[in-house]
Amino acid sequence: MTLLNETHDPSLRSWVASANAAGNDFPLQNLPFAVFRRKGSGEAFRGGVAIGDQILDLSAAAASGAFTGVAATAAQAGAQDKLNALMALGEAAWSALRLALSRALREGSAQQAALQGCLVPQAEAEYDVPARIGDYTDFYTSVHHATNIGKQFRPDNPLLPNYKWVPIGYHGRASSIGVSGQAFHRPKGQTMPPGAEMPVVGPCKRLDIELELGIFVGKGNALGHAVPITQAEQHVFGICLLNDWSARDIQGWEYQPLGPFLSKNFATTISPWVVTLEALAPYRVAFTRPEGDPAPLPYLDSPANQAHGAFDIQLQVGLRTPRMAQAGQGDATICRTSYRHAYWTIAQMLAHHTVNGCNLQPGDLLGSGTLSGPTLDQAGALIELTTGGKKPVQLPGGEQRVFLEDGDAVVIRGWCEKPGAARVGFGECWGTVLPAL
Amino acid sequence: MTLLNETHDPSLRSWVASANAAGNDFPLQNLPFAVFRRKGSGEAFRGGVAIGDQILDLSAAAASGAFTGVAATAAQAGAQDKLNALMALGEAAWSALRLALSRALREGSAQQAALQGCLVPQAEAEYDVPARIGDYTDFYTSVHHATNIGKQFRPDNPLLPNYKWVPIGYHGRASSIGVSGQAFHRPKGQTMPPGAEMPVVGPCKRLDIELELGIFVGKGNALGHAVPITQAEQHVFGICLLNDWSARDIQGWEYQPLGPFLSKNFATTISPWVVTLEALAPYRVAFTRPEGDPAPLPYLDSPANQAHGAFDIQLQVGLRTPRMAQAGQGDATICRTSYRHAYWTIAQMLAHHTVNGCNLQPGDLLGSGTLSGPTLDQAGALIELTTGGKKPVQLPGGEQRVFLEDGDAVVIRGWCEKPGAARVGFGECWGTVLPAL
Repeated sequence: MTLLNETHDPSLRSWVASANAAGNDFPLQNLPFAVFRRKGSGEAFRGGVAIGDQILDLSAAAASGAFTGVAATAAQAGAQDKLNALMALGEAAWSALRLALSRALREGSAQQAALQGCLVPQAEAEYDVPARIGDYTDFYTSVHHATNIGKQFRPDNPLLPNYKWVPIGYHGRASSIGVSGQAFHRPKGQTMPPGAEMPVVGPCKRLDIELELGIFVGKGNALGHAVPITQAEQHVFGICLLNDWSARDIQGWEYQPLGPFLSKNFATTISPWVVTLEALAPYRVAFTRPEGDPAPLPYLDSPANQAHGAFDIQLQVGLRTPRMAQAGQGDATICRTSYRHAYWTIAQMLAHHTVNGCNLQPGDLLGSGTLSGPTLDQAGALIELTTGGKKPVQLPGGEQRVFLEDGDAVVIRGWCEKPGAARVGFGECWGTVLPAL
Repeated sequence: MTLLNETHDPSLRSWVASANAAGNDFPLQNLPFAVFRRKGSGEAFRGGVAIGDQILDLSAAAASGAFTGVAATAAQAGAQDKLNALMALGEAAWSALRLALSRALREGSAQQAALQGCLVPQAEAEYDVPARIGDYTDFYTSVHHATNIGKQFRPDNPLLPNYKWVPIGYHGRASSIGVSGQAFHRPKGQTMPPGAEMPVVGPCKRLDIELELGIFVGKGNALGHAVPITQAEQHVFGICLLNDWSARDIQGWEYQPLGPFLSKNFATTISPWVVTLEALAPYRVAFTRPEGDPAPLPYLDSPANQAHGAFDIQLQVGLRTPRMAQAGQGDATICRTSYRHAYWTIAQMLAHHTVNGCNLQPGDLLGSGTLSGPTLDQAGALIELTTGGKKPVQLPGGEQRVFLEDGDAVVIRGWCEKPGAARVGFGECWGTVLPAL
């Protein structure tokens, strides 16, 4: 695998001027995909590529004749109302399209004239969930999260004996996945108050976030046929931001013995932009385990996975209360961490998911699980940040939170940055809590 | 709700002679739906209705002009390659189509001439999964199964404190659901042998069945909007047979804390025929709980649910080893039970699933969970029938089984029967274990 190629050259500049601005999430080296339309237009959703503060409309671009060969086929597939067809094409096609986009959007490109009219300002766009998600699987790849939350649910037994051997995952709900901007009603459900004799039914009192990344499956595998770890990343299209909203009081009462259900399936919010693995290549890092931990079993291990199976993606969670919004304030950061702290890599998740022959399909979504880092301020959920609701998070203006209140908005941001490489950003993933119905 | 109407009259006879034969699963009073095509024909799959040993091709029937009004609209919706559009129409349309089908297929019907050419013999048909299943949820509605299996995984704590309050469910995998006739490779995976220091990876050694029913969601509900139990059954299209194949050794090692994952998602087999709730009306029975058990919480309780929320569906599991097959023998029955023993009704499952606002969509599938009855010979899984693999099941010719061996075929059969009502059958749900790859 050639990790870096001409598309990663940090000196490349685009004829879309905003793409060259420092600190911008979508320079020419990123080129993430979404499905979008002009806000309130009633137009059909179609695929687009972020460039600076613009979106290159793939439907218009494909029709413009700016691309040829495999890249043209891929652009055509990406022009549909969901990205599944593009995802199904596989990495050679994704790579060909990336190269064509990089060249066509560069300063001095001969395609500038043809593509100039294919731009839509992001400020004028609205987005949809980028793929028809056939199945959604949520993993549990942060050992710090597993330990922190394990302490709350099982104080005497926080990290279970299987954790360091099995990339724990479970099936989530696909129908309630929404795109950034999703507003959802506080869920109701059964909870068992401490010391009560019988459960009560009512609005969730411990509504939480989970800072995650979402991994979109590209090419699928046939039922019965495991994907070896050495080929696993060939089946990954890209990565988005994901907030796995969680009702902790419902979860605590319902989760045994079959796992979380209503505590999770009322809403899951993802960012519109899907950043390809190829765009993230400069930010690959070695995958290592703490001294003394067991080596992964052979089906979960490979030289490439060890050498560069992890990604150093900076992550941040912001919270904006109704009072802050009314005062015209932005969100307050409540957590900063990096994806590099995950205990299992994407390749391991995919190899594990298919080891029994389970078939993944283009557009399937894998959640990373809450990405808490090693220290408590790096925790990706309020239940950890507040030590189970005991120590409130302090917000500007004297407000504080243990769990989410009605009207609270939460944003996840993600980006990669380092000297000698272009910034690669994920944009934002916003969600808002509405009162219970 | 009028439970019984003219379509249930047991004296009705069809001009399709085989439908009038005693013991036949598909008399005129049943009229279940499937999607089918002629075996090996390469034709498009389309909806069909079972009548005796024939299938009424809904595509051809709709085109024949045999139906009018709402029934014609419903037949047209049911003529597609999946039943989702029919499922989405709701119970008034399903009921109108049922009445039209009942009248058109009766002896002396004026539509006989038009429909005679729309029949395809079941012996010449092959089937597909009847709906695009957006999400698959598996419940755990047999208290006997929960107790039996709880003893194996948690000897000191078989029935958890939430069981009698919460209709426990979890999300399953939609992509690996196949239709009767499915053959799948024995899954491989991680297991922790008793006393071992580290897990091993290899073919599952404790491959099991789970006798279940599958409930197809008809009309969906919008995200955020719970379905009250009094309206829950309006969202149910019908019921099929379901085998939730399970790798017990993988399950035992992976399932904590987030529930079963690879131990279940390698294959799930359902019957092609979906029997509507309306067809099952004569077999409704009162829903009662054992003396001393808590009453269901108000959102899980209604007079109608108490009066006739349960269904008396006879269920049977058969096993045929390769040696039995070679000797030309049929399957040997290893379990007989009834759905009436379930601890939670369909209406309760649906009301619970949506109480937090989770959106169900047409074609979603809800598994009942293993339907074990009160005695051990009524258990719907080998792990129960063999007391955790300790007491083999005896088969004809001196063979025995603790768990499934390669080449074993398992069949689930289901039917309703009683004096004064026509038999309503589900057909068969077959699956075969292939060797691990």
